Amino acid sequence: MNRRLFFLAAALCSQIVTAGPAEYVDPFIGTSNFGATHPGAQYPHGLASVSPFNVAFGQPDLNPFEKDDAWNSRVYIHENRFLTGFSHLNLSGVGCPEAGIMLLMPTTGKLNLDAKEYGSTYSSEQASPGYYTARLDKYDVKAEVTSTARSGLSRFTFPAGQSHILLNLGLGLTNETGGSVEIVSNTEIQGVRNIGTFCYHPENVRPVYFVARFSRAAEDFGAWKKMPAYKNVEADWVAHNNSIKPYANYRHPLSGDDIGAWFSFDTQKDEQIQVQIGISFTSIENARANLDAEQQGFDFASVRQNAVEAWDRLLGRAEIEGTAQHKTMFYTALYHSLLHPNIIQDVNGDYPLMGQSGTGNTNENRYSVYSLWDTHRNVHPLLSLLYPEIQTQMVRSAVAMAKESGWLPKWELYGMETRVMVGDPGTAMIADSYLRGIRDFDVDTAYKAMIRAANQPKDNLLRPEISDYLKLGYVPVDDEGPYDGSVATSLEYYLADYNIAQLAKALGKEEDFQTFSRRADNYRKLFDATTGMLRPKKRSGQWLTPFDPELGRNFEPAPGYIEGNAWNYRFYVPHDTPGLIQLLGGNEAFVAQLDATFDSGNFDMTNEPDITYPFLYNYVDGQAWRTSLRVHQLIEQYFGTGPDGLPGNDDTGTMSAWLAFSMMGLYPVTPGNTDYALFTPLLDSVTLHLDTRYYPGSGLVINNATTDNTEQGGDINFNQRKLKKPFLDHKTLVQGGEITFK
Amino acid sequence: MNRRLFFLAAALCSQIVTAGPAEYVDPFIGTSNFGATHPGAQYPHGLASVSPFNVAFGQPDLNPFEKDDAWNSRVYIHENRFLTGFSHLNLSGVGCPEAGIMLLMPTTGKLNLDAKEYGSTYSSEQASPGYYTARLDKYDVKAEVTSTARSGLSRFTFPAGQSHILLNLGLGLTNETGGSVEIVSNTEIQGVRNIGTFCYHPENVRPVYFVARFSRAAEDFGAWKKMPAYKNVEADWVAHNNSIKPYANYRHPLSGDDIGAWFSFDTQKDEQIQVQIGISFTSIENARANLDAEQQGFDFASVRQNAVEAWDRLLGRAEIEGTAQHKTMFYTALYHSLLHPNIIQDVNGDYPLMGQSGTGNTNENRYSVYSLWDTHRNVHPLLSLLYPEIQTQMVRSAVAMAKESGWLPKWELYGMETRVMVGDPGTAMIADSYLRGIRDFDVDTAYKAMIRAANQPKDNLLRPEISDYLKLGYVPVDDEGPYDGSVATSLEYYLADYNIAQLAKALGKEEDFQTFSRRADNYRKLFDATTGMLRPKKRSGQWLTPFDPELGRNFEPAPGYIEGNAWNYRFYVPHDTPGLIQLLGGNEAFVAQLDATFDSGNFDMTNEPDITYPFLYNYVDGQAWRTSLRVHQLIEQYFGTGPDGLPGNDDTGTMSAWLAFSMMGLYPVTPGNTDYALFTPLLDSVTLHLDTRYYPGSGLVINNATTDNTEQGGDINFNQRKLKKPFLDHKTLVQGGEITFK
Repeated sequence: MNRRLFFLAAALCSQIVTAGPAEYVDPFIGTSNFGATHPGAQYPHGLASVSPFNVAFGQPDLNPFEKDDAWNSRVYIHENRFLTGFSHLNLSGVGCPEAGIMLLMPTTGKLNLDAKEYGSTYSSEQASPGYYTARLDKYDVKAEVTSTARSGLSRFTFPAGQSHILLNLGLGLTNETGGSVEIVSNTEIQGVRNIGTFCYHPENVRPVYFVARFSRAAEDFGAWKKMPAYKNVEADWVAHNNSIKPYANYRHPLSGDDIGAWFSFDTQKDEQIQVQIGISFTSIENARANLDAEQQGFDFASVRQNAVEAWDRLLGRAEIEGTAQHKTMFYTALYHSLLHPNIIQDVNGDYPLMGQSGTGNTNENRYSVYSLWDTHRNVHPLLSLLYPEIQTQMVRSAVAMAKESGWLPKWELYGMETRVMVGDPGTAMIADSYLRGIRDFDVDTAYKAMIRAANQPKDNLLRPEISDYLKLGYVPVDDEGPYDGSVATSLEYYLADYNIAQLAKALGKEEDFQTFSRRADNYRKLFDATTGMLRPKKRSGQWLTPFDPELGRNFEPAPGYIEGNAWNYRFYVPHDTPGLIQLLGGNEAFVAQLDATFDSGNFDMTNEPDITYPFLYNYVDGQAWRTSLRVHQLIEQYFGTGPDGLPGNDDTGTMSAWLAFSMMGLYPVTPGNTDYALFTPLLDSVTLHLDTRYYPGSGLVINNATTDNTEQGGDINFNQRKLKKPFLDHKTLVQGGEITFK
Repeated sequence: MNRRLFFLAAALCSQIVTAGPAEYVDPFIGTSNFGATHPGAQYPHGLASVSPFNVAFGQPDLNPFEKDDAWNSRVYIHENRFLTGFSHLNLSGVGCPEAGIMLLMPTTGKLNLDAKEYGSTYSSEQASPGYYTARLDKYDVKAEVTSTARSGLSRFTFPAGQSHILLNLGLGLTNETGGSVEIVSNTEIQGVRNIGTFCYHPENVRPVYFVARFSRAAEDFGAWKKMPAYKNVEADWVAHNNSIKPYANYRHPLSGDDIGAWFSFDTQKDEQIQVQIGISFTSIENARANLDAEQQGFDFASVRQNAVEAWDRLLGRAEIEGTAQHKTMFYTALYHSLLHPNIIQDVNGDYPLMGQSGTGNTNENRYSVYSLWDTHRNVHPLLSLLYPEIQTQMVRSAVAMAKESGWLPKWELYGMETRVMVGDPGTAMIADSYLRGIRDFDVDTAYKAMIRAANQPKDNLLRPEISDYLKLGYVPVDDEGPYDGSVATSLEYYLADYNIAQLAKALGKEEDFQTFSRRADNYRKLFDATTGMLRPKKRSGQWLTPFDPELGRNFEPAPGYIEGNAWNYRFYVPHDTPGLIQLLGGNEAFVAQLDATFDSGNFDMTNEPDITYPFLYNYVDGQAWRTSLRVHQLIEQYFGTGPDGLPGNDDTGTMSAWLAFSMMGLYPVTPGNTDYALFTPLLDSVTLHLDTRYYPGSGLVINNATTDNTEQGGDINFNQRKLKKPFLDHKTLVQGGEITFK
């Protein structure tokens, strides 16, 4: 009760004060420059979120970027100005249009159900963790949104007169269509919206269920549906031909491609009406239960405060000193790293089974949205370090998926394996976690699933090219499709095999260790000494000719490579950088070629294969200072505090995790190898609060006592002992203590 | 068990023999010439039916009549040849496109989900009550369908190879769109399909629920949805752009405008696969319960036999002698009079409440689909005479609707008052039934509802023009819309008021009797002595000028009249034909003007206002023979045994009831007046088995002993007593006995 009174007081004060790190987060970072983050309200790892949606109906003056144009994967783009609602299921930093559904929109005056017409420009925009607000110019309505883990809460402050709240189930970012809506009462709507076709894979489709509840009974309500274009005599007679049909007072389920529901109110001046929307991936009943469990009454201040506190709890694991700008960059990066994977189970534990239509039940968190080709590189190592209890659950969820479907996840989306991107990154994610000390999961099942993907020659969901790979030691370029580059795929397989080997070793499976170590070493078969590149090779053993290492730089098809060119992939053997250095002619040649990569513009900060390259200087004695230099230059060049403060698509937090690690002065270069590369932090100091349930140390302090990192660099001390190499093993680091850069 | 064994034996014999009158029924009658009947399998007053659907995709050679063309209200047209499935909810003889949904279609070979492509011509077509069969030419599949009250059963005999059964929930006769489908297992599908927008009234929409169950598990299955036309970059990427998208193995609910589901099978030669579809207007659960209750296993022969027996029971109330052609005409007419109103309640008694979205429950039959402007004239009197227990239930349902919605039905469709056509025919239907001895209903509630419609000046659902009518004694032409002819409406109001008066009298409400009798007599205000017509009058009291009594003959707008012209309405004062005769100048002038109506081509056999005109000769002494002559001429001219054997739209059995009465030699000319006009029957003899729970007599025999009816006519005896007038009151007639025409 005291707690409620406190929040009541806080609400009356109208401003909630957070003294925690959440106040440094700027959710607008990444909303321009294709960052694909959204500025909406979201609980850490929340299933639901509430984001402004401004990507429909492109107009040069209002919305220069349109959702169906230019492979847009964003619900909100900072340059756009025409808002058509607040979407309640949103992905952050993915590369294809998906979700962005259940658009809630307040309007006033004469009821208009056409989003193209009822959309509005907006002003007075603000966003912070768990909160977004803007004024809708056309209606003089103040919109505020916040979120729990599985529900959104919107508060609209209306002028006096006729006001409406529309719930549009047609418009959305997803390319999938269709849904059903039912007005349950004058305070409640329920329904379902289909999503899917992620990255234009047509087979991955599923429904999302919702219950929307209003703080005030509507005076009028109804559903609507866009009617088709009729023909012949019918066209003369039907009242709604190729236009939106209103179904006033309709109380049955209404299904269709493009539907919605409206609630209308006679509002007093400054009257606030709130709308809760609970979401579930299993049923309408569970959506209602989620809503009931996570929101009691309509307590906007409390819901917002809960979200802020949840963010403070997680962000507070890292305390930092630095400039205000750096604090914003760091905490926003951490924030963006803590959105996906998100929970998907209902409050009663129901969740969609992996790769099938049924429902499972769990008494722990079930995570979903694993963009593992991206995130296995640094998001999961970051979670392992700072949030081992969360990473444990993420590994457990991934292993549960293997139990349910037979396969570990690769690009898992809401219970569906979308098979987007290449390789077997789930293997690397789990092995790396195990080696870092995340052990509370069924490693036997995980290991068996890894071996299945590594060895099953036919109908291999994760490694479709495994048969050739087993025979030849590489994936030949001969039969590759446009998005399964043979070199890229091979390199991912080598890395996955390395991870199996390392896990096998830890599990005492010596024979497997030997086998998979040998397989991981096969990368040498793709090394072309002539060009110094990892080069596409044919089944016959001949190199692909002609061969242009620059090809693919602008996303044009490049045989052998996916999302990059030969340069981007040339050092992508993280499990054997020393070996690669030898192949490339030794330290000096290696550094020269690294430099050339950057200096020739062939380093791509916006994509994953080469994002560890700045740290590779650490592998050459005396060259670690170049890592610091490169990292600081890259941050300066590509990151910042504006909406364009990410270099490109955040890839469900991968760019952000890169930034967070990089600002702290350490980076996990190799999945399956628990060494962090160390380099001069951008921050003045960092204190990481380690979880003593997992790690012996309770804290790690990183002190930046350097004055100049542009040349040569100084010593790195760990607990007053100077390190011989600019690396520190995870096991050592989590003993706790102090790293000092001098 | 014995019963089941019997049917098993019957099934083995493959042919079911009916010795009853059902064998005379030809369901193809009315399937051409806009009769709008369907040849499908339907149980008497059944909710569900299974009809071939051949009105999609007009092509000059295959389908000259297209469903979206020419205000088509038919699921099947005899001239068409391209079948796209078997629809499971069908209306018989209505004037606007509606229902015709849940299209089941067997195909073979490569799966094709586009109805335009998977449709087929057909041959070897046969139909009889409860049964329809045809061979689908393209697939060499024999299709047979039968029906229970709430479910259909289809049996498809496939060739060897890959076979499919498609359930299309997009295509349909209804103008409403949208639905949802869920594959429950490899033997079951459930879902919902929206219907409505009846007669282009956009507000009348509702869902219909179904469960489909297959006799064999599918080897493969999936759902489909027609995807929209995508724009911009999306259009380049999506695999299904403005085309049908298959969702293989999809097991979630799939919603959309244009959806369906397929089941695929490897079939042996001549393998039979059966599909049951249960229907409900309240829920999927009830659709399943309806199916479970009405079909045990997949017993095609038994379901068909049950339907035939049900038809024989009802048709057998009338035994007739006559030519084979006349037997077919008569029993088919009776068959068509016994389709609507149909039951709508589930086996557990649930039904959709009238005019609202909720569900009621009853332990008796709840009827629906009341096209009362048509059927109050003769369908309900026919039911009152031959099936008083059914008519009792129909009245009880209508009164229950008044309890639920405040208003008696007018054109009630599946719980929705569509407000199609004019007047207050529910009042006439109920008063007439009461006066005929149908008394087991809440007459007080009925009477109150009648009075409300008769007197409520504002927001009057049934009599929107009542305010003027109360003030002026007629509906003025000044403000009329295109479909609420002021004269037509006034005449219906007079007749309704007459019925209230007659009921008031029977209930001892003398004052109401006087009041409403006076109101009914106001038809005189519309009689224009100059033209001899009932003529549109302005609010000022002036006649509408100019005035062309022929206008409206071809359905062009005619001020004052709906579905007709002044000629069609000129004698439409059935409650005071003697008074009208006086107004028209006496007997001779009246007969001359009646003759002129027929002889000038201004009699319309296809529509209701004038269908009693041939019987009006009976009101003039010595002229009854002209009735016989006209009636026999009209039957000869407009009715027959071919698909064009109805003069036009059957109007939910009204044309058929006209024929059935007319062939028997009696006709109920005036609702609220229980006299039958008598005239020479077309049949040799008729024996009506009266229901002794309602009527004192157990049988009525009508003997046609005439040899020539072309002139003067002979005597009419009732129980050996010569009648002074060619009328017999219902109360007398149901004493039973014998009418003989000599």
